[in-house]
Amino acid sequence: MNKHCIVIHGGAGTIQRNSMSPELEKQYRQGLTDALVAGNAVLEGGGTSVDAIEAAIVTFEDNTLYNAGRGSVFTHEGKNEMDASIMCAKTGMAGAVAGVSHIKNPIKLARAVMDKSEHVMLCGKGAEEFAKSLNFDFEPDAYFFVQQRYDQLMQIRDSGKTQMDHTAADPKEGQKKFGTVGAVALDRYGNLAAATSTGGMTNKRFGRVGDTPIIGAGTYANNKTCGVSCTGHGEFFIRSVVAYDVSCLMEYKNFTLKQACEEVVNKKLLRLGGEGGLIALDAQGHAEMVFNSEGMYRGMKRAGEEFVLGIYRD
Amino acid sequence: MNKHCIVIHGGAGTIQRNSMSPELEKQYRQGLTDALVAGNAVLEGGGTSVDAIEAAIVTFEDNTLYNAGRGSVFTHEGKNEMDASIMCAKTGMAGAVAGVSHIKNPIKLARAVMDKSEHVMLCGKGAEEFAKSLNFDFEPDAYFFVQQRYDQLMQIRDSGKTQMDHTAADPKEGQKKFGTVGAVALDRYGNLAAATSTGGMTNKRFGRVGDTPIIGAGTYANNKTCGVSCTGHGEFFIRSVVAYDVSCLMEYKNFTLKQACEEVVNKKLLRLGGEGGLIALDAQGHAEMVFNSEGMYRGMKRAGEEFVLGIYRD
Repeated sequence: MNKHCIVIHGGAGTIQRNSMSPELEKQYRQGLTDALVAGNAVLEGGGTSVDAIEAAIVTFEDNTLYNAGRGSVFTHEGKNEMDASIMCAKTGMAGAVAGVSHIKNPIKLARAVMDKSEHVMLCGKGAEEFAKSLNFDFEPDAYFFVQQRYDQLMQIRDSGKTQMDHTAADPKEGQKKFGTVGAVALDRYGNLAAATSTGGMTNKRFGRVGDTPIIGAGTYANNKTCGVSCTGHGEFFIRSVVAYDVSCLMEYKNFTLKQACEEVVNKKLLRLGGEGGLIALDAQGHAEMVFNSEGMYRGMKRAGEEFVLGIYRD
Repeated sequence: MNKHCIVIHGGAGTIQRNSMSPELEKQYRQGLTDALVAGNAVLEGGGTSVDAIEAAIVTFEDNTLYNAGRGSVFTHEGKNEMDASIMCAKTGMAGAVAGVSHIKNPIKLARAVMDKSEHVMLCGKGAEEFAKSLNFDFEPDAYFFVQQRYDQLMQIRDSGKTQMDHTAADPKEGQKKFGTVGAVALDRYGNLAAATSTGGMTNKRFGRVGDTPIIGAGTYANNKTCGVSCTGHGEFFIRSVVAYDVSCLMEYKNFTLKQACEEVVNKKLLRLGGEGGLIALDAQGHAEMVFNSEGMYRGMKRAGEEFVLGIYRD
């Protein structure tokens, strides 16, 4: 069954069919398809899982509909602060950036940390200096300005919910979304890789960092077990070390990928009230897209099979 | 055996008896004793494990000999950027700060993130703003200026090793030290807690963050298994999710604390070339102080027993 495969997510949360217009749903599905097409093209062409997930996530980061890169939500100060991470199971190496601004594609910077530095995690201005030293693409504030995102901030900020508000709630729609994008791939060489990118939470303050840039929490990949990318209420995912927990249940308790994902998302996280989900692939090519929220933007493309897309629970 | 107990470390690395003066060794041992006395006093008085480890770490942070708080090493830019984290097994809550400057006691700020925010991790200037909102103690650059630390930076910076240099090498002594301090305690109520604090690596650049502020990597605590605080080459500890790995080996594979620590430090990390060590306590009060480097500043105090101190391998 070890055929190349890519699985992606575009965030989880209160995503309900009755509050989604057909036009908006079409745009979301197109975004998922674009990511799968980009990642699958790399895998079809004999590329590596690391290249495939980077290509997939770049399409999300360039799409204003998803909360990562260009479409990142605004912090309390009206800025965009982004996090991203990537891990390569073949080498066991990883890279991550937290709280970076003006970087067009944070996932490329996370990859550069993995490939071109001795470090795993770089933060804030320091990470931006590293990017400058590598002649990275920087974009002005205007590039990241999306009217809808700014309106979301104004609605929350004006409502007085300025205290460490962790929700990305859109009061108009009563929705709580954990906007994050992620990808996990298995290449024809049998190597897994996983990556995650986010613009964080609307109205976030105090340099809050969620699970996205944390190896073991939001992202993890190991050829003995699986690759995992998470989306959800980050604080719960950090405390539960979610991505590595899935891997440990497989390695130490001989759970299948499906059993491990169910245990972590629908038992352990649910008991704690930790809303969200994850995507995962094992080295045999089994895929899981599991969530305990009402919906998760998700998709999968396996060699020789049809595209699979999903948004709602059923 | 469930008596209250505190175990501490003050960093691991190339710590050799023949390069240590009797006077310096005495100072290091006094620092370890001070930390144990502070933490033990809390436990003796019926305090919680969280209060005990905070008290112990504050003594390290106020001691210029240890690389945390006041004695933090200098970054490439001649600044002090500190990281800290804490986790309470009773509540499962955690707090962490990364890349903070001018905070007298970063461990207190990590605890405030745990107790007084909805978040787990705050970074850089944002974390400092959070501290200001709580009227935290700030200190000027002069407070953190330690001539020996500055000399260490000058020696490395002048040597041209400015590229992402991850060692805290003192060229004079040929030493490589992973300066970090940590504490794990079990209180009379049977609750574990773990905490870690560091000034990072001399000459570090680009906002590098190691394992210290990462829950699951540098710090973890769970009453079902153990509390863990790590010190070592942080990048390896992040990629190996070291602290949570010890816990998972106990929970999922029924390893004893000793077996789990040996497996992680002396097998898995050693195979990867990841130098360092950790301290750990389980809920029954078993303690481990394990390292694969030449030495680790360490100590333990159990109710009704003598103080135990150690520096070298034997």
